[in-house]
Amino acid sequence: MSEITVKIPAVPAGSYKIKIGSGFLAKLWQQINSDFNRRNKFIITDENLDKTGHLQTLLGKNDVPKFVIKPAGEISKNINTVIAIMEAMEKASLGRDTLVVGLGGGTVGDIAGFAAAIFKRGVPVIHIPTTTVAQADSAIGGKTGVDSSLSKNAFGAFRHPAAVYIDVATLKTLGDREYRAGLVESVKHALIADAKYFDFIEKNIGAILARENDALEKLAVHNCEIKAAVVEADPTEKNQRRILNYGHTIGHAVESVSGYELLHGEAVAIGIIAAGLIEKELGLADETRLERVRRVFSRLSMPVSLPSKISRKSLLETISRDKKAVNKWPPFVLTEKIGQVHRQNGNWAVEVKQEVVEKILDLLK
Amino acid sequence: MSEITVKIPAVPAGSYKIKIGSGFLAKLWQQINSDFNRRNKFIITDENLDKTGHLQTLLGKNDVPKFVIKPAGEISKNINTVIAIMEAMEKASLGRDTLVVGLGGGTVGDIAGFAAAIFKRGVPVIHIPTTTVAQADSAIGGKTGVDSSLSKNAFGAFRHPAAVYIDVATLKTLGDREYRAGLVESVKHALIADAKYFDFIEKNIGAILARENDALEKLAVHNCEIKAAVVEADPTEKNQRRILNYGHTIGHAVESVSGYELLHGEAVAIGIIAAGLIEKELGLADETRLERVRRVFSRLSMPVSLPSKISRKSLLETISRDKKAVNKWPPFVLTEKIGQVHRQNGNWAVEVKQEVVEKILDLLK
Repeated sequence: MSEITVKIPAVPAGSYKIKIGSGFLAKLWQQINSDFNRRNKFIITDENLDKTGHLQTLLGKNDVPKFVIKPAGEISKNINTVIAIMEAMEKASLGRDTLVVGLGGGTVGDIAGFAAAIFKRGVPVIHIPTTTVAQADSAIGGKTGVDSSLSKNAFGAFRHPAAVYIDVATLKTLGDREYRAGLVESVKHALIADAKYFDFIEKNIGAILARENDALEKLAVHNCEIKAAVVEADPTEKNQRRILNYGHTIGHAVESVSGYELLHGEAVAIGIIAAGLIEKELGLADETRLERVRRVFSRLSMPVSLPSKISRKSLLETISRDKKAVNKWPPFVLTEKIGQVHRQNGNWAVEVKQEVVEKILDLLK
Repeated sequence: MSEITVKIPAVPAGSYKIKIGSGFLAKLWQQINSDFNRRNKFIITDENLDKTGHLQTLLGKNDVPKFVIKPAGEISKNINTVIAIMEAMEKASLGRDTLVVGLGGGTVGDIAGFAAAIFKRGVPVIHIPTTTVAQADSAIGGKTGVDSSLSKNAFGAFRHPAAVYIDVATLKTLGDREYRAGLVESVKHALIADAKYFDFIEKNIGAILARENDALEKLAVHNCEIKAAVVEADPTEKNQRRILNYGHTIGHAVESVSGYELLHGEAVAIGIIAAGLIEKELGLADETRLERVRRVFSRLSMPVSLPSKISRKSLLETISRDKKAVNKWPPFVLTEKIGQVHRQNGNWAVEVKQEVVEKILDLLK
């Protein structure tokens, strides 16, 4: 028996830029051409960006090969859409020197990132997120993927973007419900990492809801700084990155059991309130803190209790199938004060007994 | 305009082992369970491994979830096979703690590596290659992928295996034509990297063709050492790794124009002779060297001239569409002596004028 060792060289540290401003979409293509001048470009977007005119604003008179996902939304986030995109890229005679440009919300970003990750064994991608949730969360961090018929993000890859361009003015065409639900990820960032940011959201919620550029830019900067710091510390979600899952363990279950009638942010708002109730039950939080969070979500028109048709039994079953579950029960991310995650023995997600969760689900009714 | 820099941490160097022997397949599952004891296993193989009994030898009485690709071969190397595999993995309730085991030839390895790369954003894969070409070449180096309707390996990822187990005894059930064609990659390795290895092949070609364990083990060790060294120096094919493409620029074109009637190794043998003729034309080689290579290929029953129905015009068109082409003409890997690639200005693939290639294609008739 012979044995040969193959060495895999280290990959050096790298970085990418997030550029944040308002109203620069019409000049952005020129900037992208200057930042990535030696690459062919291919745009992946969806019909919403066509309808709102953002695609036209971005491109101006430039003729660029593109794929417009129809219909927009989670329903198209599957491998068939990716295959159609890859074939369109091949028909456009694109090679390894291609730059994929994702323009749109979280679904577009997840699809574009995944298509870039597997086209000709990987080409770079840049994101131009245009929704509150994509600008706060999904465009940064390198998670890409599409759903299978059985589960969400069943197929995917970790792939950091080469750049992210956030024009907060694109948020102005967003529907009210989607706009507000996307802000829940901003509240989550404040709760897990930055008490002053939570103060900022409380004080400026009127300007945020009025979509004032200045408030939106500050929001985007805070979100990106927090998410970037967490992702840097743990890019492939071994431990610390799990704090981004705050409110998501119960939130994902609520979203799923609602049959996706609740938007992701709406379900996560309920999940964050549930986490707050667990914290109170375990002596980590008092009623005053929980009330501050409830008040912010109420201003955002988010639900803060369980819809009556969602049963405790279905929720518990769904939680036990969580992909982070060990022995059919997942660990939970909890905070010990606003801006500070509670750690136990170096773990950022901790054990919470099922009976505690059962009790707070009753309180959530 | 604000700007935030997201740092991407370095990935430390790693390594994996290639274990080479003969007749250890029946004990291998125990070894794999010991090497990767904390992981669920999922086997990807094809119907040939079922027919030859190698799958049964590997598994013994162990019941392991698996996917058997039908029909075997390049025709199944497409995204639909990957989707079917992913769904089978999901139905087996497998998560991120899964180890994918690829048992088979190059096609199985490419598919298994790619499925592992994208399942739940990536799980580890180990390879048990069972053909001359997979043991010499495709199991090592981390290239994975499947074909689209338009081109080969259109979708894929770089993903190093966690281990490779080479049992040369599995080669004994291989059909004669496939067995011999796979040896061309061994000759290629000798030509680009190791003159003494070329001497070994010349002297032991009888034992190799008789599939004697001792000769086959030495062959596997040489191949893996050479391929490992090249891949270590340039894992994502920026420059030096291109030397593995020796004979492949014209070889791929011959394979494609033949409508895949020629096996990959047969087409590459013609491509290596073509490279030799170019070397002679450019004063890098003499007739004696070329004759040694021709003699080895003749012993392997490989073609050393172009089949009459392959036209020069179709070949030139196909070469100009090579994926490494710049301005519709690819660079060529050439040797300056046996075991030594010819470099120009630090480049391992060099410019060869189209008229030179046209001339040698006429000589190849």
